Amino acid sequence: MTGEEPPFRRIAIAGIGLIGGSIALGVRQRWPAATVVGIDRPAVLAHAIGGGAIDRGLASVSEIEDADLVVLAAPVRQNARLLGELPARIVETALLTDVGGTKRDIVSAARRLPPGARFVGGHPIGGAERGGFGFARPDLFRNRPWILTPSAETADASVAVLRRFVEGLGARPALMDATEHDTVMAFVSHLPQLTASALMDTVGGAVAGGGLAVAGRGLMDTTRLASSPSSVWRDICSANADAISGALDQLIDRLNDLRADLQRGETIDAIFGGAARWRGELMKDRD
Amino acid sequence: MTGEEPPFRRIAIAGIGLIGGSIALGVRQRWPAATVVGIDRPAVLAHAIGGGAIDRGLASVSEIEDADLVVLAAPVRQNARLLGELPARIVETALLTDVGGTKRDIVSAARRLPPGARFVGGHPIGGAERGGFGFARPDLFRNRPWILTPSAETADASVAVLRRFVEGLGARPALMDATEHDTVMAFVSHLPQLTASALMDTVGGAVAGGGLAVAGRGLMDTTRLASSPSSVWRDICSANADAISGALDQLIDRLNDLRADLQRGETIDAIFGGAARWRGELMKDRD
Repeated sequence: MTGEEPPFRRIAIAGIGLIGGSIALGVRQRWPAATVVGIDRPAVLAHAIGGGAIDRGLASVSEIEDADLVVLAAPVRQNARLLGELPARIVETALLTDVGGTKRDIVSAARRLPPGARFVGGHPIGGAERGGFGFARPDLFRNRPWILTPSAETADASVAVLRRFVEGLGARPALMDATEHDTVMAFVSHLPQLTASALMDTVGGAVAGGGLAVAGRGLMDTTRLASSPSSVWRDICSANADAISGALDQLIDRLNDLRADLQRGETIDAIFGGAARWRGELMKDRD
Repeated sequence: MTGEEPPFRRIAIAGIGLIGGSIALGVRQRWPAATVVGIDRPAVLAHAIGGGAIDRGLASVSEIEDADLVVLAAPVRQNARLLGELPARIVETALLTDVGGTKRDIVSAARRLPPGARFVGGHPIGGAERGGFGFARPDLFRNRPWILTPSAETADASVAVLRRFVEGLGARPALMDATEHDTVMAFVSHLPQLTASALMDTVGGAVAGGGLAVAGRGLMDTTRLASSPSSVWRDICSANADAISGALDQLIDRLNDLRADLQRGETIDAIFGGAARWRGELMKDRD
């Protein structure tokens, strides 16, 4: 596989954290001939150069001199801002993508780029609790979905080359419209996060340390996400507030139904049956 | 350790499933001199005798001829009924306990036993999704909490000998009043289960197979409990409906708060901060 002609020869990655760093390491492994430039704080760049992930570092995206591909891998809100700071020359020549967890915002920011700019939103579905280059690894994306969100105006060629890129990193590309992406993520990613946090906060507040000491594995699994830092989630919640509110409404309705069933002495079978069936579907073909 | 004088020499276990079977196997390993009689359906008894877990089997608790300890390890509602079917002689001589997930019901049923009966409710906190003797193992309880719920009338000696028994099986005994147990469990066990089921049913119903295919590890962990069979949970929900309703109310309040914060563009930091702190407390001293 190594030595194969890379889909992009000069790659610039803004934000060398878990995702950006893992992309850099994956490129190194898969296409050693490609050059990778990183944009981040000096300490992070030194770490990434020392770890062999990037060839050199820049302080700002405005300093990018040449690139076939620019990957915006900073937090969601920052990516939209970085898009406006790219040199005009790079916007004309490079394919632009991002890796943010919400997509309507960046896709709409990309609409304000000059005509001829090629932007395709992306979202690799990660599974890592801990951020930072220290946890980056070349196989982070292996067998994981990587959603691409082209709009009606996106050229097929742009999607095709980006698809080849993410497949090269081991991911399974999936195409979705940005609005559909944000709705789906509100349910499969943002709602579980808010639920885990609300559950942990509720349970801890009610039973405190003595009660938590006798908790079993069930509470631990259900609340694993509750250690997520709010710094990451603040932006996502704000960028996707409408879709997340809708998802919360549906969950609250289900919980109210369960509560009414319990109080009327009715059976919980309908929700349990539906849940077990969907859980089987979720785990189908997974390791 | 083996060969040590057992706290009980003749043990009868009603229900040789995951819990009852694991107790039997644990006794075998720790106190080979003790005899174990099992009460269950013939096919289960044959399996348990073949697996070396019990010495012999009976079809009904009314056939128990002698025992120092009777463990009721059938589903919650059945245990309360079995208590009334024990021979008067056994009620007089044996220590009686159970392993059910709710405790007010069985403790109150035990109050109707003849004077002199010695009952101490118990609840080993398991972590197994799958029931049945096929999954039983002697180390199921190692380092796991095992709650004992003596009432004001329970003799200290009864608690002491049962405590020695569960410690012998590797568990960490914790004492609680039955009402406190049921409230704590409503939060640390029953609420996570209902939440996982409601979440999975909500998410599956909203996004179906296509959305579930792009879900990450977060949804999988948060909904692991959603494969639990409703047959196990029907009794628990019904026996502890009042406490679970109260716990559901608190979670629904938190989710409504989150939703209002999102819609007002306010920060999610308070709930995320509380959740991360309680999660740290939950995982303290755990593997």
